Amino acid sequence: MLNVRTRLQAWQERIEAVLEDVLPPAATHPTKLHEAMRYSVLNGGKRMRPLLVYATGEALGIAPEKLDIQAAAVELIHVYSLVHDDLPAMDDDALRRGKPTCHKAFDEPTAILVGDALQALAFQILATHPRMLALPAQRLRMIEQLGQAAGSRGMVGGQAIDLAAVGQTLTEMELENMHIHKTGALIRASVLLAAYSAEGVEAQRLQQLDHFAKCIGLAFQVQDDILDVESDTQTLGKTRGVDAAAGKPTYPSIIGLSASKMKLQDLYDEAMNALVSLGESAHLLREIAEFTVKRIR
Amino acid sequence: MLNVRTRLQAWQERIEAVLEDVLPPAATHPTKLHEAMRYSVLNGGKRMRPLLVYATGEALGIAPEKLDIQAAAVELIHVYSLVHDDLPAMDDDALRRGKPTCHKAFDEPTAILVGDALQALAFQILATHPRMLALPAQRLRMIEQLGQAAGSRGMVGGQAIDLAAVGQTLTEMELENMHIHKTGALIRASVLLAAYSAEGVEAQRLQQLDHFAKCIGLAFQVQDDILDVESDTQTLGKTRGVDAAAGKPTYPSIIGLSASKMKLQDLYDEAMNALVSLGESAHLLREIAEFTVKRIR
Repeated sequence: MLNVRTRLQAWQERIEAVLEDVLPPAATHPTKLHEAMRYSVLNGGKRMRPLLVYATGEALGIAPEKLDIQAAAVELIHVYSLVHDDLPAMDDDALRRGKPTCHKAFDEPTAILVGDALQALAFQILATHPRMLALPAQRLRMIEQLGQAAGSRGMVGGQAIDLAAVGQTLTEMELENMHIHKTGALIRASVLLAAYSAEGVEAQRLQQLDHFAKCIGLAFQVQDDILDVESDTQTLGKTRGVDAAAGKPTYPSIIGLSASKMKLQDLYDEAMNALVSLGESAHLLREIAEFTVKRIR
Repeated sequence: MLNVRTRLQAWQERIEAVLEDVLPPAATHPTKLHEAMRYSVLNGGKRMRPLLVYATGEALGIAPEKLDIQAAAVELIHVYSLVHDDLPAMDDDALRRGKPTCHKAFDEPTAILVGDALQALAFQILATHPRMLALPAQRLRMIEQLGQAAGSRGMVGGQAIDLAAVGQTLTEMELENMHIHKTGALIRASVLLAAYSAEGVEAQRLQQLDHFAKCIGLAFQVQDDILDVESDTQTLGKTRGVDAAAGKPTYPSIIGLSASKMKLQDLYDEAMNALVSLGESAHLLREIAEFTVKRIR
């Protein structure tokens, strides 16, 4: 068996090819919009959500070719949210993964439309893409789940909570509530979309996977906040310290840096505990959790 | 039988109640976002697309209660596109239907998020809303159609074409291409989503309905351009002459006002011709076409 890093890398290459395939070609009219969509999606992201889809599939015995479209759909939603989040009216970020953000590389109206079009594409491919192999009832359940996770009571709701929190003093619980919506919902959707691709996954198993996703979703955010304090702009690939400068509440600003690191460890342990009964089949989910807490950007 | 105006009004009231029902309550957390979503959707719009859904259903013998969610989904997509279109980076409009636009009544980040959340909701309700009565395979076909119509090769693509056209000299054909994408795609989707709710609608019938939708979609746009020249701000409910002032190509600016009026009449005639074989069952579709060309705002 290949070592885990190599296998994660293979999935990363796999999802790049799938995304490349589901996106309209750059030469398709209107070309500027399609170029901007491809620029925003095909930019060397970490692909954490697609990796979670594939790794959950492995834990449940579902082959990657049955999960390609689900993985692409969650990534399209994630990318659209980044494009909109970077807009001048939102976080006003100039750099993303070391490259100019969409509205900087193109322009603001194009960035708004890129996000809008990527969201529509995500739902469209779940419904009827030729590479989508799940049954109709399973697809509908996935669309429902993704809509819920992406919508006003999920990711977009989290962004609204985030906006309202600027300059406010939040409690740790309020901060957690924000992250559970803003990033947690889509990370949980990644695991659930994979699980919905199999028939008859037990409720208890679903709950374990969901709890794992909830923990690493939050861990990812805590690590993000720690990196925003400790890392430098070059390593990070985005402007360092922007969250603190923008008056955004972060774990270090609320509970301090060392308590944040302890929280990160606790979440990691809890995520690992959730996977115990899955045994060896979950080793790539464990690797993703480890990567989440040890990453430097 | 009630007269047609009364029946259209009954459908308008019907869709208001459905939209009210599918939108999260204003008291749902985060409340500002949900208030802004409801403000943007429940604002006394003409509901042309839902009316088309119901009227197409009537022409095909499909009861309104089987079309409520389809009607709501197309309207949610339409409203989200207006909210984003009105943004400062886009058309920068302060008035919509006589009321402050979403980013004026709330703020710009909220307006971005409102649009994003409404789009997610549209797909979500098509997938699994309890009032959705279509079969799984039909729902998937609708989601595919709506995704296509709303996406980069449909409505959003049309907005990109529109942006690129500002200050340019377009031919009539280029202008038509823009409108076919920007507004035509969703109007056609309204008719198709209704048709997909029935089993076994003949290809020829689908084509007739689709052609009808294409003609009135374009007629609506021609009339919009004429009104932008001829009407006043108060009647229009939005700032008059903005398109011309923004250097946007319009039918009057390209082919002149009187040729625009002739084109409007031609499109109306063609739309009516497309319905001939549908006989009496299509009388409300005819009424909508007539309303489209005779409306004063």
